[in-house]
Order: sequence, then C-alpha cells, then structure tokens
Amino acid sequence: MRGVMMYAPGDVRVENRPDPRIEQPTDAIIRLAATCICGSDLWPYRGADALDGPAPMGHEYVGIVEETGSQISTVKSGDFVIGSFFASDNTCQICRAGYQSRCIHAEPVGAIGTQAEYARIPLADGTLVATPAVPEPDLLPSLLAASDVLGTGWFAAVAAAVGPGKTVAVVGDGAVGLLGVLAARVLGAERIIAMSRHEPRQQLASVFGATDIVAERGDDGVAVIKELTNGYGAHSVIEAVGTQESMMQAIRVTRPGGHVGYVGVSHDVALPGNELFFSGVHLHGGPAPVRRFLPELIDLIWRRQIDPGKVFDLQLPLDDATEGYQAMDQRRAIKALLQP
Amino acid sequence: MRGVMMYAPGDVRVENRPDPRIEQPTDAIIRLAATCICGSDLWPYRGADALDGPAPMGHEYVGIVEETGSQISTVKSGDFVIGSFFASDNTCQICRAGYQSRCIHAEPVGAIGTQAEYARIPLADGTLVATPAVPEPDLLPSLLAASDVLGTGWFAAVAAAVGPGKTVAVVGDGAVGLLGVLAARVLGAERIIAMSRHEPRQQLASVFGATDIVAERGDDGVAVIKELTNGYGAHSVIEAVGTQESMMQAIRVTRPGGHVGYVGVSHDVALPGNELFFSGVHLHGGPAPVRRFLPELIDLIWRRQIDPGKVFDLQLPLDDATEGYQAMDQRRAIKALLQP
Repeated sequence: MRGVMMYAPGDVRVENRPDPRIEQPTDAIIRLAATCICGSDLWPYRGADALDGPAPMGHEYVGIVEETGSQISTVKSGDFVIGSFFASDNTCQICRAGYQSRCIHAEPVGAIGTQAEYARIPLADGTLVATPAVPEPDLLPSLLAASDVLGTGWFAAVAAAVGPGKTVAVVGDGAVGLLGVLAARVLGAERIIAMSRHEPRQQLASVFGATDIVAERGDDGVAVIKELTNGYGAHSVIEAVGTQESMMQAIRVTRPGGHVGYVGVSHDVALPGNELFFSGVHLHGGPAPVRRFLPELIDLIWRRQIDPGKVFDLQLPLDDATEGYQAMDQRRAIKALLQP
Repeated sequence: MRGVMMYAPGDVRVENRPDPRIEQPTDAIIRLAATCICGSDLWPYRGADALDGPAPMGHEYVGIVEETGSQISTVKSGDFVIGSFFASDNTCQICRAGYQSRCIHAEPVGAIGTQAEYARIPLADGTLVATPAVPEPDLLPSLLAASDVLGTGWFAAVAAAVGPGKTVAVVGDGAVGLLGVLAARVLGAERIIAMSRHEPRQQLASVFGATDIVAERGDDGVAVIKELTNGYGAHSVIEAVGTQESMMQAIRVTRPGGHVGYVGVSHDVALPGNELFFSGVHLHGGPAPVRRFLPELIDLIWRRQIDPGKVFDLQLPLDDATEGYQAMDQRRAIKALLQP
C-alpha cells in the first residue's frame, strides 16, 4: 500500500509500505476513506521533536472495516468507522471514567501511521465507533475532524468548564483552537473570544461562533481580555498551542476560580508554582480522550448540526502529502485532508 | 495591647503594639478569644520567605466584636465571630463564585497580625461569620481551626473532588493535611491514605478517619499508593506542603482523570509541562476561599459532628508565643494555640 513516512525534519515521503495484517484477535483492518495531517505532525517536521529513524505518520482516520480479529464484536466488515489517536479497551476503570486516552492498555495509533491506504487499529472493539450508515461524501471531512481536532477542541472546552452564561477565551488559532470555538458555541457559551492575528483564521473563528477577535498576544493580549471582561478575566480558557507563552497567557486571562482546558502538546513548558497557586484557576488537559465524545460528535455531524470539516482548507491525494506538510508548515493551509 | 512581631528568621517577640482602631467604615475591631501559629508562619521563621523589616504575625482568629464601622450590618458588638485570612467583600463576581480569597478587594489579614489581643478586620461584613451564640470554651480550638487550617484542608478536599466511593491520598501531615483527612471522611471518601512518617501525626490521621498510613515518600511513596490502588492511583489527592517534591508526588499518585487539590503555599516549584500534560489530572488549588465554607464548618462544629481542634497539641499564653514557634519549628508540636 501507499503510505507516508518521515525520514528527517522537512523530509516526508510517500512510499510503498507493507499492507497491515491482523496481529491480535482484538485488531481490525480499515481501508482509509480519508486521513489528514495534524498540527502535532509539524513538531517533528520542524525538528522540535526528535525523530528516531524513518517513522510512519498519521493518527487521524475514518474508513471502512475490511477485516476483524476473532474477538471483535462491536464493528464488522463494511462498517464505516471513526476512532481516536489512542486505541483503548474502553472497559478499564480509566476508560469508564472517560479518560480513554490514558487507558491502561492504550496504544498510540500514530505509531502505526494512518496517512496510508490501510491501517491496523488495535483494541478495535473499544476504539472504533461506527456511523449509522456509510456517509454521504460531503460528511467525510467533518467525520474525519471528529477523529482528533474536533474531539480535542471539544475536550478542551469541557475541561475548561464551558457552559451557558460563560465568557470563553481561546488561545491558539490552529484547527484545534478553531474547533474549540465551535465546541464553546454548541456548549452554550455566552461570549467567545478568539485570540488570532491571521485573517483567514479570524474569519473561520467567526463562522464557528466567536463573538470577539483579539489580535494581541502575551501581556497585551491579557490586558485586552481583562478589559473585555470588566477586569475579571474569562471564566473558561481553551489553550491549544502548548508553549510556555501560550500556557501563561491562558492562565493569566482566566479569572480566579475559572478553568483552563489545555490540549496543546506541551513543549518546553515549566509552570511557575507560585503564580499558578495564586492564580486560583482550575487546570485540566492532556491528550484528549476523544473516544468519550465520539458518539455525541458523530450524532451532531450526522444531523448536520455542526460542520467542523471547514477546518480542511486543502484537499490533496495521499501521494501529494509532501505538499500538505509544506502548506501547513508555511501556514498557507490550516489543515490538509489526504485522499488515499 | 500585646502582640507578636517577627524581627528576623528565628527572632519572634511579644511586645506592646498600638491598639487597633476603626480606619474604614467597613472595619470591625475584635477582641481575640484565641489565635494560633500557622505552618506558613514557619517559612519566614526559617528564612525561606524574605522578611521586610519587623512584621506583625498571625492570620487566624476567633473573638468577640468590640466595635464596628458605620457601614457594618451583618455583625454587631458582642457577637462571637470567625473570619478567614483574606478579608473579602463577599459581593463581587469572584466572591459569589466562591473564591473569596481572590476577591477583587481582598486584603490579607496577615498584614494586620492576629497574634495579638485585638485586631482590626477589614471588610467585616463580607469577612466575619457569627456563631449562634458565644461558644462553650471547649469549642474554641475547633472554631479557631475553621479560620484557616480546617477551611484550607476542606477546600483541598473539595478541589480534589473527594466524594463517596473515592480513594483519597493526602500528601503532608501538618495541620492542613490532617484536616484534609477529616474533610475527606466527612465528604464520604471510601478510603483515605495518609502519607506520614511521624507517629503522633499518623495517630491523629487515624483518629480523623485515615484508613491507611503510608510512611514512604517520593518514588517509593508513589509505588506504594499505586500498589494499594491496583495500579490505577488515587482518585483524589490532597497536597498540603508546597514543595517541588510534594507537588510531583501528588501528581504522580493521582490516576489519569483524577483530581489534585493543592493548598501548600508554593515554594520554588516549577511544574514540568510535559509530565503534567500526560498525567491527565485535574489541578486546582491556591489560597483557600475559607469564607465559602465557614457557615457549613461552624455548623458541623457547633453540632459537635467534627473535632478539628485536636490539631492543637500545644496551648500557650500569648506572651509565650516564642516557645510556640520553636515547638512547631522543631516539630515538637503540630500546631500551637495562643491565649491572649
């Protein structure tokens, strides 16, 4: 099959890879209907994450079940399915509490690589959720978004305790931040402040439900948010970047007793204990337990209540994945969908 | 009046200080019935916090209202009252959300110093809570505990989402940690693991409701807690120390999706973003909004449902405060009550 490999920073290739096979009775093989490039794939692409030899890429996926292991009972061949970037048994205490990304048997799907024609999904019973039928093609981008960026933005909003009457600020205007805006709107936020200085992203934030756009960053951004909230700060803040600056910005725009939901994969962050202590905020985040939200998100997409697929502003054949990485790296595209 | 001043690390003196007077129409003057020394007073005593010239000491207090400013309506002369270490208006948005310690008009009572015969309490209407009557003398220690250490331990338990069916671990065996054990019991925890290596404190933890005692610390302590919880970690963890070691211990003994309530005043702590991210825990804490809990805590004490005053294992006349500091510094006493 064709699949994407990263050899070194900036060196992504589409090449022939072995077809995946059932290895465990809990596996399923899916034929990808669509896959995509994640903002987190840019960390190794830019050399910010170490790369240990050539690595298969991709952890977002929707597709048709081709084959199932002998212990699989919740999905069957021909089902159209979505899963998260962590395979999970969905039965352990951690999963049942809604933290499937930290399942005691969790396996990162990224190690398998879904930027490919086929993928082996471990723990398929606990990981995959089938749609009611094979979807209309125009729903594919939104269903694919549910696999990570929508699920992650949604988790960030839930972690930030977004709800009716609340003022929400969103730090980060990548796909996850933008879908955090969408999640905040669906979850009933009264006011949604998107922090972005990029015009196309500002526009999409408004489409998704942002009521205010703040272009300032750092201390200036904090000052503007305070001003917009009568000096109190936001009730709920979504952090979707993962740097020291973005984390501190998120903590500083949150009112005492408010909630920060952080989902940007942490890079070189050290939170000063004293400032965190006196901030009085709630801090929750980490790798999103997307599996928790998949049934609800699929239902919203299926009923065409939300259109998160709008974050894909570039669609390419899988064989042109290299161009997708370049476009996202250069911020010419928010997110690139790849068609196997 | 007589009052305690700290001149330098290790140099605490009881001396004559000016009687406090009403300065603002929102002030009240109270005559202290009892006051005490806090674990946090040991930070400057040990030289770990900078001291800027001689400073009045003490922020815990119960007493009788002597005089009120012209705008005071919720308490009157002769009332027996309790307040927190932060004066608060109890009307701003932050107070109404339950975070009175971060009230937009918050004033630290520690700057006034309640290790004295009298104290001026700012924002008295929002700060002081009257008991149903002047209490029996045997209730004084417990009511005094509500002013800080009980309220702080209680907040830590609430911040750690303690509740029925949960396993709670408590890091820190000072008065706050011990009263975190008590709070966890009252809030319905199924299992309460106190981490302590000091025999008298282990005993008091058991009296307050601890079901398990773990003497190990650091990595060994983490391993024992994991073993006690089938590898999952505790649902709820109370952190009541404030050091890098105690914070990391608290985060590491918490299961993914679990809650850390941290109330130890942070000293030289830097939380590694990457480990925090992948821990998947909820983190909440800071200076406890004791005012939120005072009515409930006073009621529990008044009905003799709880006896938090047991943390005072040393009672001294105010004039012997120096001995109280020494006893706590040398860990001969858990907490010293001072009688003006």
